[in-house]
Order: sequence, then structure tokens, then C-alpha cells
Amino acid sequence: MEIYEIKEDILSRNNERAKEVRALLDEKGVYYVNLMSSPGAGKTTLLSKLIPRLAKDFRIGIIEADIDSDKDAQTIERETGVRVIQIHTGGACHMTCQMSLEALEALGTDGLDLIFLENIGNLVCPAEFDTGSDMNLVLLSVPEGDDKPLKYPLMFEVAHAVAITKLDVSEIFDFSPENAVKNIKKRNGNAEIFFTSAMKDDGIDELELYIRNEASRKIHKINNR
Amino acid sequence: MEIYEIKEDILSRNNERAKEVRALLDEKGVYYVNLMSSPGAGKTTLLSKLIPRLAKDFRIGIIEADIDSDKDAQTIERETGVRVIQIHTGGACHMTCQMSLEALEALGTDGLDLIFLENIGNLVCPAEFDTGSDMNLVLLSVPEGDDKPLKYPLMFEVAHAVAITKLDVSEIFDFSPENAVKNIKKRNGNAEIFFTSAMKDDGIDELELYIRNEASRKIHKINNR
Repeated sequence: MEIYEIKEDILSRNNERAKEVRALLDEKGVYYVNLMSSPGAGKTTLLSKLIPRLAKDFRIGIIEADIDSDKDAQTIERETGVRVIQIHTGGACHMTCQMSLEALEALGTDGLDLIFLENIGNLVCPAEFDTGSDMNLVLLSVPEGDDKPLKYPLMFEVAHAVAITKLDVSEIFDFSPENAVKNIKKRNGNAEIFFTSAMKDDGIDELELYIRNEASRKIHKINNR
Repeated sequence: MEIYEIKEDILSRNNERAKEVRALLDEKGVYYVNLMSSPGAGKTTLLSKLIPRLAKDFRIGIIEADIDSDKDAQTIERETGVRVIQIHTGGACHMTCQMSLEALEALGTDGLDLIFLENIGNLVCPAEFDTGSDMNLVLLSVPEGDDKPLKYPLMFEVAHAVAITKLDVSEIFDFSPENAVKNIKKRNGNAEIFFTSAMKDDGIDELELYIRNEASRKIHKINNR
């Protein structure tokens, strides 16, 4: 069918572009993390917690993608003091790799070690478009329910790590961490899973350590080339 | 740009198809409600509350759209006993009007007065595709945050009514109903706004009355033609 061929063509061009982005970031020694989740799952709050910890050892840049508004960019900049740029996708429901590349160029990769992209809040479309990131970090918030990996399969298939967020309200929402893990594993046996509550500062250290180790490993490897 | 022209073409064909669906439903005297929200905002739970109330006076059918899984269809069928069909969108992030039409045909509109479509959980793409519905009912759940109408404008622009859900947890999540209303009104001055908690059965009667009145008005008008 015509529409699907067009879509495949778009996706195949996107994948080619993702290879270019990876080559560029490898050359610069930059580690790139793509945060994805439903609207309001806590991407901005988690970043506000992670960045002050990681900023002790990494030079960090942030790309905030939104359809409209620059509220998150303002929040992150105010709370962390790191360099943030705001991308408006013009109605689009995801970041393409071309948008990702333009955002990286606008942010400037020189002198940075670690870049976070806060993608559009959407559990479907962003999963289809490789942004050229080293890590896909997917958030699943407790109020959404532990069944979401069953209903939004691709997002959990492309995740390198899943952070369950807002765990402090799991009893109010009848959310079972065991079921969540079981449902994530059904989609992806390799994803690292973290249990976090930004409110209580739970699990943030573990997630920070994971990102720190992954980023250090890449940067170390590049520096020793 | 080529891609945007293709998209416009798809959307314009979709709008044409929506007119056909409306003509079909008008002829049959059926009122059609399209429920849209983020993943896990409470569409299925709200339907489980509304349907037993509405089923006293309307013959109801339900279309459950999901990328994968038929969990919601099972829940709704078990809890309400009304006729439910499950649509799998094959990865697609929204219902097109063609899918909507096929779902209506599969459900069968004869002998029904009121049909609900539970769209894919996504605050972006479903807003672009008119399903031929009489009412777009958008849910905004408290844990997502009161700023979402600023960040996902089109969804709130196309809404006839917005139901704020999970209001029982508004204090835990620092959600301001006043800000939510202000942000919804910024996008759409005409949307009816309801404050609901399915847990506490708050606001469900008001929302039921609104749907009841809108549906009755259409059906009455058609019967008196």
C-alpha cells in the first residue's frame, strides 16, 4: 500500500541519518541519551534530579523537544544551570533524526560529554524514529498502570533501560511492580529496570550510576583510540 | 515539502471520509463519542462507570482501539455486558476515519443509539484524524500535570468536552484545577469541563448528563425529521 511504502522510505532514510549522527558523536566523544515516555510521566523532574549529580563529572547539554511551550526548558535551565535548547517540532509527534541532528548542531557538541534529549511525550511514535542516541531511556509512571508495556510494545522493545517513576504512589494506584517487570520483560528481556521516586529521591542514585557507567565506558574507549 | 503534502493529502481524504461516516450515523440515528487521552489517563475506567448509567436509556456499543492487547475490551465487556469490538491498529498511533468506518461496520450500527470509541492512548496524533464522531471527549489525568493543554495544543482545540480525571489525587500531585481550566480555556474557550474521580464516583453523574443530553438531542432531532 502506497502510504506504508512512503513510511518505510521515511524510516529507512531516518535510520541512515542515525548512523551519521552516531559517527559524529563518536568522533566528538559525546554520549547521547534519548528520554521517552507518555505525557507527564516525569521526564523533566527526573532530569532535574539526575543532572546535578552527573554534572560533577560530565559537561552536560540538554535538548527539550515540545510541540509547543518552552516550560520544560525554562524549568531545567533554572534548576540545573546547564545549557538547554528548546526545539519546537511544529506539531510533529516525535523527533526525527534530522531534527535530532539540527538540535545537536544548535546546541553545539564541542566541549560536551553527555547530552540528554527529552523527546515529545508520546508512547508510540518516538519509538519508531531512531534519534542517533546511545541510550533509549523509557519512563513508565505508576499512575499509567503496569499494563502499558503490553499495549505500547515497540516503545519497550527499543528501550535500553526503563525507569518506573512515581513509585511513591504505587499503593494508591494499585500498581504492581512485579507485573510491570513481567510485562516489560515480555517485550524486552535485556532492558535494565529501575524503580524510582523523584519525590523521595529513591532509585535516582542507581539510575545515575548506570548512565555514568555507560557514558564513561564510551568516552573512555574513544579517548584510548 | 513533499512529506507535508502527502500528510495534507491524507488528512484531506480523512476529512472527506469523516463526512461520509457522519451521514451514515445520522441516517441510523446513532450518536458517536470519541474518547482520547494519554496512555493510562483512565479512559477504560471512565467508560466502565458511564456505561451502566447510560445503558438504562441507550443501546450502547463500544470500539476499543489498541496497538496490541485486548485487555481493555475484556475489562469493558466483563464490567458492562455491552457489545465490544477490539480493533488492532497494527502499530498505528491513531484511528483514521477509514479504521473508524470499518470498526463501525464490524460492530454493526443497527439497533444501537450510542457508540463509544476508545482511541489509542496518545495526546498528539489522534487529534489530527477526525473519526466522524459527534463528540470528542478528551481526558486529562491529574498525575500528568495541569500544564498539558499548553504542550499538546491540538488535542484540546478539537475537544468538545474535557474530563479531568483522578481528581482524588490532586493534592498529592500538586495539580491545580484552576490552572488546568485556565490552560484548557487558552486552547479552547468552548470546551465543557468536568471534574471527575472514578474512585470516588465524583463528577460522573454530571458527565453522564452531558453525554445523555447531547445524544438525546441528536436522536430526537433525527426521529422528528
